[in-house]
Amino acid sequence: MEATAHAARFADLIGQANVLTLPDDQAPYLIEWRDLYQGVTPMVLRPGTTEEVSAVLNYAYENGLKVVPQGGNTGLMGGQIPQETGDEIVLSLARLNKIRNVDPDGFTITVEAGVVLETLQNEAEKVDRLFPLSLGAQGSCQIGGNISTNAGGTAVLAYGNTRDLVLGLEVVLPTGEIWNGLRTLRKDNTGYDLKQLFIGGEGTLGIITAASLKLFPKPKKLEAAFVGAQDPHAVLKLFSLAKAQAGPLLTGFEIMPRIGIEFCLKHLDGARDPLESEHPWYVLMELSSGSEAFEVRDLMEGILGDAFEAGLVEDAAFAQNLSQVNDFWHLRHGLSEVQKPEGGSIKHDISVPVASVPDFLDKAMEAVDAFVPGCRPVPFGHIGDGNIHFNVSQPVGADKEDYIAKWDEMNKIVHDIVLQFNGSISAEHGIGRLKKDLLKDVKQDIELDLMRRIKAAVDPKGLLNPGRIL
Amino acid sequence: MEATAHAARFADLIGQANVLTLPDDQAPYLIEWRDLYQGVTPMVLRPGTTEEVSAVLNYAYENGLKVVPQGGNTGLMGGQIPQETGDEIVLSLARLNKIRNVDPDGFTITVEAGVVLETLQNEAEKVDRLFPLSLGAQGSCQIGGNISTNAGGTAVLAYGNTRDLVLGLEVVLPTGEIWNGLRTLRKDNTGYDLKQLFIGGEGTLGIITAASLKLFPKPKKLEAAFVGAQDPHAVLKLFSLAKAQAGPLLTGFEIMPRIGIEFCLKHLDGARDPLESEHPWYVLMELSSGSEAFEVRDLMEGILGDAFEAGLVEDAAFAQNLSQVNDFWHLRHGLSEVQKPEGGSIKHDISVPVASVPDFLDKAMEAVDAFVPGCRPVPFGHIGDGNIHFNVSQPVGADKEDYIAKWDEMNKIVHDIVLQFNGSISAEHGIGRLKKDLLKDVKQDIELDLMRRIKAAVDPKGLLNPGRIL
Repeated sequence: MEATAHAARFADLIGQANVLTLPDDQAPYLIEWRDLYQGVTPMVLRPGTTEEVSAVLNYAYENGLKVVPQGGNTGLMGGQIPQETGDEIVLSLARLNKIRNVDPDGFTITVEAGVVLETLQNEAEKVDRLFPLSLGAQGSCQIGGNISTNAGGTAVLAYGNTRDLVLGLEVVLPTGEIWNGLRTLRKDNTGYDLKQLFIGGEGTLGIITAASLKLFPKPKKLEAAFVGAQDPHAVLKLFSLAKAQAGPLLTGFEIMPRIGIEFCLKHLDGARDPLESEHPWYVLMELSSGSEAFEVRDLMEGILGDAFEAGLVEDAAFAQNLSQVNDFWHLRHGLSEVQKPEGGSIKHDISVPVASVPDFLDKAMEAVDAFVPGCRPVPFGHIGDGNIHFNVSQPVGADKEDYIAKWDEMNKIVHDIVLQFNGSISAEHGIGRLKKDLLKDVKQDIELDLMRRIKAAVDPKGLLNPGRIL
Repeated sequence: MEATAHAARFADLIGQANVLTLPDDQAPYLIEWRDLYQGVTPMVLRPGTTEEVSAVLNYAYENGLKVVPQGGNTGLMGGQIPQETGDEIVLSLARLNKIRNVDPDGFTITVEAGVVLETLQNEAEKVDRLFPLSLGAQGSCQIGGNISTNAGGTAVLAYGNTRDLVLGLEVVLPTGEIWNGLRTLRKDNTGYDLKQLFIGGEGTLGIITAASLKLFPKPKKLEAAFVGAQDPHAVLKLFSLAKAQAGPLLTGFEIMPRIGIEFCLKHLDGARDPLESEHPWYVLMELSSGSEAFEVRDLMEGILGDAFEAGLVEDAAFAQNLSQVNDFWHLRHGLSEVQKPEGGSIKHDISVPVASVPDFLDKAMEAVDAFVPGCRPVPFGHIGDGNIHFNVSQPVGADKEDYIAKWDEMNKIVHDIVLQFNGSISAEHGIGRLKKDLLKDVKQDIELDLMRRIKAAVDPKGLLNPGRIL
């Protein structure tokens, strides 16, 4: 059957206006924001309800049509962009955007997949609760995509990854069948925990249409400090000390090198050197509490006082008000974009066991400098989770294209060191299409084989997001 | 081939002394502590290493032999006891009992499956860390079994279920292949999270041989209070208030009815009425902190002061020292055994959304009284997790056997109410053999079908713990 005939059938199922076949209408769904992928599709479908998603997938299953689910189109691995072959239908979840239920007493919220993360955060705030998932794309990414990629972000330290925030899922399976797993239970041991397969499954096993999620008390008190330190070994000790004293109230702990601060001072509006003198490394430390009961400021002073005495910290500045807290985070959040004007940057999203981060950094920085003398590593990020964005800027004055041509080789060097520490080559961004070919190097054959068997068991025709992950 | 021939081959693989074929040697492995099941087996195998488990399973796979993995033999659902048919080999993990690695800085520990939970707790304590999983059987249950059943216990409120404590697993698959998934990463998005299938998989998909687990700061300060309240509705409001003020420092919140306290006073050594006057319901509330920094006593006083003002609490007693804390928990932990001298008790391990617990209790208590007038519900447990042990003692003077004969009927009545609240009929004890036939009543066909497809994909010959869960 021709694509136009299929389009007509889909129009019967979800309405003509929700079947996009014109290039201009399709354009925003076919390109991702780093311009790494440009997809081609016969049509973009925009169902508005779970039942419509079910009808679409059932028709696709019967007719052997491949389907790529798409949320806010903010993924970095190309998972949500249709292949250039032009035979994959895009299914956008954007119209499934209802808040189905908010239960402040039970600390849960149930929402549809297309709800934008920031909207979800705001809905929680309206009832004096926190939905803690927080990341750069929160103004446009959708919760269904966050769950499908098990998104990370800056609040993982205290609240866990997206996986830890999910209580239940509603999923449309490749056949179009609807699995209603929307439970809001804290304890349930009745067979295999199926939802775990769809969390981080990158849309290859089913399409998440709704989720029941955990809420938390909204932070009432917040303190932040910017700290200067000699090296990552001291920073790790500071982390241990802070974690021991603050426990679950330690809600942010981000590491940055001096060069990152310098890039900010050159290229980021409103950036100011956070401390009077310069230091090789910095930490942005945040404490917060959902309760008025804790003297969070005293706690921060106690931790840093002990750290000074132990020689772990060279200098520290406390945020005196919320505006200064925001200034501190402005530096941290600016670290990605300030690398652009400095030329080419080869990126790695890695994790190692928390206690191994300093040794990893020592080895990796030495190795990339041996590979490209004069290159400028800007490793930063969530050291408390063992997750470092190990980005490496080109040497000053080098040719950008020549440098970027070394991407795969440098990746291999860094990833080999990651593996020496039993680490991960994709800590929070997933696999998608970009890292698919790397998986065989980092996984046992039996692990990949198990994944393939599960894919075949749940999606026997291999129609859902084919060629992603596996 | 005869069982004796197989036994000889297994002796070649793991040593003659570790192949138990004599009835006296086998006896402890064939009966569970509630005497509900009495198994029969050709042999009990006791491999001592992961490689030996692998060799055993490979031989079993090649020869079509069924295998039942067993840890500390404390499960309540019969999952670990071989069928009466006598064709299932028992594989005990008890000899895999090494602590492989302790990493206090990284807050992780890696242990083999046969390590007893209490041993694991002690190993953590030696390095000033907490492994929070805590339950009645901790002196004999093994961590492999805890993981396979996703055990709950009294620390779930603050630290989560066993699932939340697992960072990585080593698993021997039904074919004997070893999957080394022993990672200690806090973030890793590289394909399907396979470990989740084995957690709570009740040994039907593979045999867990080792695990990397999370550790936490060891509590430095601990406060407990015993509180009298009018009804579960007030108790739920107290929970919300306490959770909002204490957040993650609220580490225990257990509900008990007056009749439970009365049973304790009659039958439990050392039990004393915790408050001067009598109250229809009680709460044991615990706050603890891994840091010296928090004034936990002030926090407890603040919460209960607010609760008094709001009319949620009738009376409260603070534990003045650790001995009194233990006295309070002694009452709570005694609640199971004190039901025995009161005659027959029909039990339910259920959960509902936290905010629905009071309504569930109203309905369920009314329903069982209508079914057996004069029966005495003793519902108690983890109200903060929505998990209630809804046990119902026989009417005074009734015939125990007649009463116990109503077990299935009463289960059905209670479970139907659980389902009205979208709850779970097995909150923390799993399915095993005992609740297998109930699953079809509480799960969609598509959910059971998915479970069967995953079982077939991972254990195609159906040899591993057959007839459990599915």
